Amino acid sequence: MTELDFIDQLKALATHPAARGLADDAAVLPFGRHKLVMTHDMMVEDVHFLSSADPADVAWKLVAVNLSDLAAKGAKPLGMLMGYCQTGDDNWDTAFVRGLKEAIGHFCVPLLGGDTVSAGADGKRTLALTAFGEAKGHIIPARCGAEPGHSIYVTGHIGDAWAGLQIASGKAHAGDIETSAALLKAHNRPVPKLDDGRALSSLVSTMMDVSDGLLLDASRIASASGVNLEIDLDQLPLSQSFKTVFGEGEEARMSAATGGDDYQLLLTASPETVLPINLSKIGKCRPGSGVSLVQKGERIGLPETLGFVHA
Amino acid sequence: MTELDFIDQLKALATHPAARGLADDAAVLPFGRHKLVMTHDMMVEDVHFLSSADPADVAWKLVAVNLSDLAAKGAKPLGMLMGYCQTGDDNWDTAFVRGLKEAIGHFCVPLLGGDTVSAGADGKRTLALTAFGEAKGHIIPARCGAEPGHSIYVTGHIGDAWAGLQIASGKAHAGDIETSAALLKAHNRPVPKLDDGRALSSLVSTMMDVSDGLLLDASRIASASGVNLEIDLDQLPLSQSFKTVFGEGEEARMSAATGGDDYQLLLTASPETVLPINLSKIGKCRPGSGVSLVQKGERIGLPETLGFVHA
Repeated sequence: MTELDFIDQLKALATHPAARGLADDAAVLPFGRHKLVMTHDMMVEDVHFLSSADPADVAWKLVAVNLSDLAAKGAKPLGMLMGYCQTGDDNWDTAFVRGLKEAIGHFCVPLLGGDTVSAGADGKRTLALTAFGEAKGHIIPARCGAEPGHSIYVTGHIGDAWAGLQIASGKAHAGDIETSAALLKAHNRPVPKLDDGRALSSLVSTMMDVSDGLLLDASRIASASGVNLEIDLDQLPLSQSFKTVFGEGEEARMSAATGGDDYQLLLTASPETVLPINLSKIGKCRPGSGVSLVQKGERIGLPETLGFVHA
Repeated sequence: MTELDFIDQLKALATHPAARGLADDAAVLPFGRHKLVMTHDMMVEDVHFLSSADPADVAWKLVAVNLSDLAAKGAKPLGMLMGYCQTGDDNWDTAFVRGLKEAIGHFCVPLLGGDTVSAGADGKRTLALTAFGEAKGHIIPARCGAEPGHSIYVTGHIGDAWAGLQIASGKAHAGDIETSAALLKAHNRPVPKLDDGRALSSLVSTMMDVSDGLLLDASRIASASGVNLEIDLDQLPLSQSFKTVFGEGEEARMSAATGGDDYQLLLTASPETVLPINLSKIGKCRPGSGVSLVQKGERIGLPETLGFVHA
């Protein structure tokens, strides 16, 4: 059974409106005068991070990927609960706690509880984090509000995390140390767009974070909204560091568009909406379905895989 | 590094008052006019459940152990997020979902989100659940309010889950089917004391759920409150099913007192407090520290292990 088949079984159970059909980045539940936004992501050794990864980076990423889900709802993080499987490697545990401390300090989100268990003698490191926050306003962005004519935007740069992974795994080399460091940092220490999410949440028609690849995530908005998302590959915001190493040709752009782990925000908005922060407009919603790509005004084919599909 | 050493490192990070020093069953955070109560427990194959366990029972227990933490705070459950590692065994996954559905229906707590990941080819099943709820009133019970003179109470029966485990693992045999079924059910399908928790929460001086063994959990109240908990072994409430198989001698009572997985509530209250439900009074708080045992009015020695200490 694939992950998607299993999720379909769970969806049949998750009928409460706050679950959003298990088709969103987070659950959104009215609580008192505000909305409680909750997300839970797991990371497994050899699946989501390499055994050789710096444990401090793994801790940072565990926090960041969850906060990124809150960012996509415009929520202010209030706290986290962590589930941690120990495997008996004290150095790993200690380095992990160091990274966790850095993330807690950087994002000012308190660790409030959780559970520590033994992974058993032959177990893998499995990490779980629940982050929750508070969102104000009547409507919390989802993936299902895009309409034909709406513009598609993305925050920051796309592709740097993919580029960092290529450097980390020895598949590419940056000419200079600064470029290398910038791309590695994008991969190892993503920074969720919490402020941007809060500034945008009441103005957008859809919003989500880019975790599995821009095209794959865009296809999820397309599917939930029942529109086609036409993305202009030339408008993809590539960083100077990315371009220094990989150029800005079609192959590089395609890698950026499918690489994942960006933790930028992908959003749609009516073209009349004035958005309060700098964004890159990367395309337009049209009648239809799925994602399509254009370059220099011409429709081009989609790559074989739109992003990182979990096993 | 033991689990306790690691938790000590985490405690240094968890300085927010809502974290309760990571020394409680749940985090308690003011949110609007009420309190948000949150807990997160993990279960690992071969550590917390046998590979041979019925996956539907595992799902039920994952929900029950988390809701039991909410019961100990007198919280009304509002929802759950689940983290699930797939290992590629479709039958297991399907049976798990069946048990999850039963638990969701029985406890009326919606599944609102979570994450499904691959455990990798050689990974173990690792399950994570976050449950959260709402508690009313100014003071939410903790482990640190017991005073000398307070009475010690427990809900329901103690020892049935341990007895069920003995039967499940072939270490004991019940004479009749009804007795066997009752004890197995206590082990496989614990029912958290949510209503009792809500009825008691504003009246108690401490409250927690009995998960790792009555004596071990009592020692945690003793430690947090700075008192001695003197427990009368003869007052332990044993079920008829338990007594049918194991009798009610000192050895049987000691097993019940240390067996764990009861998910009853252990609490202390001032002797003047009138408690609104039937409870068993099992002892008294005295000046001092730790747990001590009496039987027929005489102090007796503590067993070697007070309960289930996680590796």
